[in-house]
Amino acid sequence: MTITMHDLAGADPALRFSPYCWRTRFALAHKGLPVETVPWRFTDTREIAFSGQGRVPVIRDGETVVADSWAIAEYLEERYPAPALFGGATARAHARFINAWADSVMLGGIARLIVRDIFAVIDAGDRDYFRQSREARFGTTLEAVQAGRETRVAAFRESLLPVRLVLGRQPWLGGAAPSYADCIVAGTLMWPRCSSGFPVLAEDDPIAAWFGRMLDLYGGLGRAALRP
Amino acid sequence: MTITMHDLAGADPALRFSPYCWRTRFALAHKGLPVETVPWRFTDTREIAFSGQGRVPVIRDGETVVADSWAIAEYLEERYPAPALFGGATARAHARFINAWADSVMLGGIARLIVRDIFAVIDAGDRDYFRQSREARFGTTLEAVQAGRETRVAAFRESLLPVRLVLGRQPWLGGAAPSYADCIVAGTLMWPRCSSGFPVLAEDDPIAAWFGRMLDLYGGLGRAALRP
Repeated sequence: MTITMHDLAGADPALRFSPYCWRTRFALAHKGLPVETVPWRFTDTREIAFSGQGRVPVIRDGETVVADSWAIAEYLEERYPAPALFGGATARAHARFINAWADSVMLGGIARLIVRDIFAVIDAGDRDYFRQSREARFGTTLEAVQAGRETRVAAFRESLLPVRLVLGRQPWLGGAAPSYADCIVAGTLMWPRCSSGFPVLAEDDPIAAWFGRMLDLYGGLGRAALRP
Repeated sequence: MTITMHDLAGADPALRFSPYCWRTRFALAHKGLPVETVPWRFTDTREIAFSGQGRVPVIRDGETVVADSWAIAEYLEERYPAPALFGGATARAHARFINAWADSVMLGGIARLIVRDIFAVIDAGDRDYFRQSREARFGTTLEAVQAGRETRVAAFRESLLPVRLVLGRQPWLGGAAPSYADCIVAGTLMWPRCSSGFPVLAEDDPIAAWFGRMLDLYGGLGRAALRP
């Protein structure tokens, strides 16, 4: 039975840009598991009430429902061991650090560069919720958060130094082959790619070259994704 | 045959504070391998010329000489597989990210808090080298680099958020048991502990609790280390 996944969508239901949902899309593709995605909006909380919480991604695999991208990755590894996303308990424990780093450093950094662009592509029904919740979080307007990004982007790029250092030593964050670590960081970079035209990476950054290879994996899944 | 290791020492040869050397000390202890350390100063480059480079740690294990804490960890895992430091190729690949993060975020952040304190404990013969090389790197005096640390330490502590998030989910960075990831981060924290009295961690930080458990491991190896 095909796995279904509720996936954050923009005003155009084909526009999918959630960094958490993309981690799961890449993880499913890594496992070779087909998925049927269901477009979902921030305010569609009733649509995923069956999952016992209000955020995506949520997957349904037969009778099993799993929410939260990290929990989904653990579920997939347990239920469909090969090809491995982690390759052992210690690799999974170490990937949790990369996940925490992406959540705290990458998501926060990227939000400050593109949050107003996201507002422009989300569904009309989501806009009040999005503006109010994000402006409360940042303590200022979406427009003010994003202002000055042309100069601030340099500091964001500098914050990715650990990724750059690793990719100077091995082709994938997972080593000789991609692992869930690659899904985490590439999934996070799908967020600006699919919600904004702003270049968060410099063209000559080795991270951009690796991301290009990630976009081409899994039959070009990332490359084919709609952009605004 | 006992492994020997050249280990950075202060004016007091019993004072050992190199973050890279401590990663290796913890890794050796994790493997249950006895080590005989040789106190070494920054300017003793001829003493380790046999290693083909000029930095510590350097270990000699019978006929084998290995320099660089990461290369030493890989060597130890290959030569003495159990107990595992990594537990597989993907875990090692993911640990490289944690190593790169510690090198770029932790070492840079800590240096700006304690570099003048380090100057105070190193050997008299190392002082000109240390001041000149570090002042060239920072573009200002050691005293100016360290100034204002009481207010700046908050940002450093915030930069450790990924560690804090992980330790909220699992007891060790390695998961249910310590791995080389724990050696990396704890080894890095031995640097301020053994060269400065400045508290880089808040007492109520969960990272401090975990570090306390690391200090107690391996017969209290970290706890017993001389402090200035």
